Amino acid sequence: MRTIFFTYGLCLIGLSFFMFFPMLADVSSPTHEWNVFALSQFFCFFLGGLMVFSSRSGHYTLRIRDAYLLTVTVWVGLSLFSALPFYFTAAKEYRLNFTDAVFEAVSGLTTTGSTVYTHLDAAPHGILLWRSILQWIGGIGIVVFSMTILPYLRVGGMQLFRSESSDNSDKILPHVHLIAGATLAVYTGLSLLIVFAYDLAGMSLFDAVNHAMTTISTGGFSTHDASFGYFKAPLMQWLGTLFMIAGGTPMILYISLFVGRKNNSLLLYQAKAFWIGLTVVSLGLALWLWYTHTGWSFADALRQCAFNVTSVVTTTGFATTDYTLWGGLSVMAFYFLTIAGGCTGSTSGGIKIFRFQIVGKALMLELRRLISPHGVFPRDMGGKPLSYEVVSSVAIFIAMFCFIFCVLSLALLLTGLDFTTSLSGAATALANVGPGLGEVIGPAGNFTTVPDAAKWILVAGMLVGRLEIMTVLVLFSGSFWCDV
Amino acid sequence: MRTIFFTYGLCLIGLSFFMFFPMLADVSSPTHEWNVFALSQFFCFFLGGLMVFSSRSGHYTLRIRDAYLLTVTVWVGLSLFSALPFYFTAAKEYRLNFTDAVFEAVSGLTTTGSTVYTHLDAAPHGILLWRSILQWIGGIGIVVFSMTILPYLRVGGMQLFRSESSDNSDKILPHVHLIAGATLAVYTGLSLLIVFAYDLAGMSLFDAVNHAMTTISTGGFSTHDASFGYFKAPLMQWLGTLFMIAGGTPMILYISLFVGRKNNSLLLYQAKAFWIGLTVVSLGLALWLWYTHTGWSFADALRQCAFNVTSVVTTTGFATTDYTLWGGLSVMAFYFLTIAGGCTGSTSGGIKIFRFQIVGKALMLELRRLISPHGVFPRDMGGKPLSYEVVSSVAIFIAMFCFIFCVLSLALLLTGLDFTTSLSGAATALANVGPGLGEVIGPAGNFTTVPDAAKWILVAGMLVGRLEIMTVLVLFSGSFWCDV
Repeated sequence: MRTIFFTYGLCLIGLSFFMFFPMLADVSSPTHEWNVFALSQFFCFFLGGLMVFSSRSGHYTLRIRDAYLLTVTVWVGLSLFSALPFYFTAAKEYRLNFTDAVFEAVSGLTTTGSTVYTHLDAAPHGILLWRSILQWIGGIGIVVFSMTILPYLRVGGMQLFRSESSDNSDKILPHVHLIAGATLAVYTGLSLLIVFAYDLAGMSLFDAVNHAMTTISTGGFSTHDASFGYFKAPLMQWLGTLFMIAGGTPMILYISLFVGRKNNSLLLYQAKAFWIGLTVVSLGLALWLWYTHTGWSFADALRQCAFNVTSVVTTTGFATTDYTLWGGLSVMAFYFLTIAGGCTGSTSGGIKIFRFQIVGKALMLELRRLISPHGVFPRDMGGKPLSYEVVSSVAIFIAMFCFIFCVLSLALLLTGLDFTTSLSGAATALANVGPGLGEVIGPAGNFTTVPDAAKWILVAGMLVGRLEIMTVLVLFSGSFWCDV
Repeated sequence: MRTIFFTYGLCLIGLSFFMFFPMLADVSSPTHEWNVFALSQFFCFFLGGLMVFSSRSGHYTLRIRDAYLLTVTVWVGLSLFSALPFYFTAAKEYRLNFTDAVFEAVSGLTTTGSTVYTHLDAAPHGILLWRSILQWIGGIGIVVFSMTILPYLRVGGMQLFRSESSDNSDKILPHVHLIAGATLAVYTGLSLLIVFAYDLAGMSLFDAVNHAMTTISTGGFSTHDASFGYFKAPLMQWLGTLFMIAGGTPMILYISLFVGRKNNSLLLYQAKAFWIGLTVVSLGLALWLWYTHTGWSFADALRQCAFNVTSVVTTTGFATTDYTLWGGLSVMAFYFLTIAGGCTGSTSGGIKIFRFQIVGKALMLELRRLISPHGVFPRDMGGKPLSYEVVSSVAIFIAMFCFIFCVLSLALLLTGLDFTTSLSGAATALANVGPGLGEVIGPAGNFTTVPDAAKWILVAGMLVGRLEIMTVLVLFSGSFWCDV
């Protein structure tokens, strides 16, 4: 319990630190917007300090059960505190009610990128920067979470990513500092690189900083209503595509470039499939689009497809154009791509590539077994043994993803939303993508007009999706609270 | 090879035997319709006899590999021969082109129940009877197949249904005669019972015979354009509901009523969930309908819901009314119910109840394991051990179901069908239900206007779905043809 308190307090202090930047951005604003951030910051710092102080001494350990509780409460709690600036902001037309403020904060911290804001172009810089910072924090948070805690919790096949040396230990903390530090360094370095590149390609510094933070975190918040489509230059859109791919690639792979870390063969195996898959789908869709939309040059078609496919697969959610107008095939393709997701160990959400690889590999093995029931075949993938246990874990994860998708869709439908909006809303929230399909929440729309009940359902979906589903489901199982 | 030839010949002779009945029904017809059946019958009998004769001697064994080949070729081959009467029929306005004839025959033999015929009420009795007979044959065929061959092939978790005594043997044939005989007796008995009940409740004898055959086989062909809705009497619709449930219940359970067979605890476990699930869903939907449609009495709402929910879950495909007009929630509910399916060992299709039970049970075990990684929990379901291997088999089955569903949907979309028709067409074919959703192929429509390319895609979907997917996929794997 003390560990949970301590971690929670540290996170709050961290959050308050980040509120410093939007305060600075608003310090010159005539509406004294900075007051809001200063107050929120003081409140978070004070509360966090109190929590750290009260639990500062003693030995810190984390049992499996506590890890689940900690993870879920940290994400939920930080979302509530992060919503403060949206709720109290001095700019009246950008002040959100409680539901909207929480929705925006959760959408930020889960790197989803669904927004309730309109007229972004004229919004106070503080608010815009805060939204981008939330996604940046959420991004680094999920990478560290998925590379340190998840493999120990064995959620949805993540046990494959345990490093062999520590396979027999159930203690989680020792590795966290190391991995978190290295990841933070890479993540910050990449962000700076993207700021530099965007700025050089023609963005204003403010736009570059914001978009860099929401690109690397595959979040998708923009400072413009037209999203990334505001920047018309082909070079800019290609840069965006490239950096989204960078965000959807496991961070540990970058680290291994420097330190030559072993044990990442599976991550590389996954990343390769991710890169190849993206290329194939983009090329295929571009060819189809080039063939059916006679007005487009192939270069245009390829750029648009590459950008928007990458945006959806990496679960970023930027849009350069309303791809739902491209016709039935593309709508369906984007629908399936929404739930696919990027790589484990990156900032992207969804089911994730390695789970599809495991299912595919298991299918091949199953077919061979069906033909020769007594044959013995090597069961491994990317250098790791692929036990039936792992396949079963992965399958349960995917089944739960589909099940919760169905539940969310039905719930959204009951709030009065139409068929397309319900289905794609559930998918886009659960996979942390951002925009859905249809007129209301499609790439050209946003979530302002969605009823409050639906927003809370989406908030739940975003959190459950971000925390890899099983982490949250565990808290709802009887044995979590009863068994000793 | 000789075994395959022999079995195939026997099946053809069997088919020709059944052509006798529609011939009789048409013998009084002024168009000399009976000629067509007589000729088709002779052709099938002759070819079948030739095949049996040429492979009549020697020892009959069936290797695993041959079993796959036999199953698939028998279903495909018989469909082609069954299409002869539709293609050659003397009644000009009911003569189908090649595509339509094959579609109708496959829809019959797979007990799907999608039809390309309109003006059924005025159709020649021979054609109508032949459609019903095809479903009846398809029904008994799939029950025998799923209770004798599938458990040996270990397809999609079916290994759970192997009887313990013969677990170490890979020979398939010994049990077939016994189980097939008992099943045929029960199936015929039930059919006669239903004919009697329908006739007593007010159907004409011809209607009673036809609907009895398509009810017990959960096929769904009707002799009227209005499907089962032609019979307005509440008693009739309740009878229909009851008998569809009878068709969706494993046939072996009826046998065990007489002979007290052991080893069916899992089938009973499955059937219980099936009955309870049907009741809960029907009641829930009826309450919702009663609440939202003020004109309806609760008795009416319950009857309509019970009938149509049962029809879709058992994959029969009868309709008493256009349930797609009931509003968004019901459309979505029917969509999910379409792919759920009935019990293994019955005539219904879809993913099947026991697979959902296995996934549910595996989830519970997974949650306990996530909380206590070193705990040891009993892994069994309905009296059978539930190994990770079985869970993995089931998961791969469901994954392939979803994958092929996606492929079929995309393919249908490419033929120019709209979004709803494509998605529900793929689902209804793969799960062998019959009607889809939307204006074209919904319960009030039929498949006449669907383009030819789409019909072939649906034919493939029906066959793959009926043969439990993996059976067909095996034939497409490289190791089937290469490994020794």
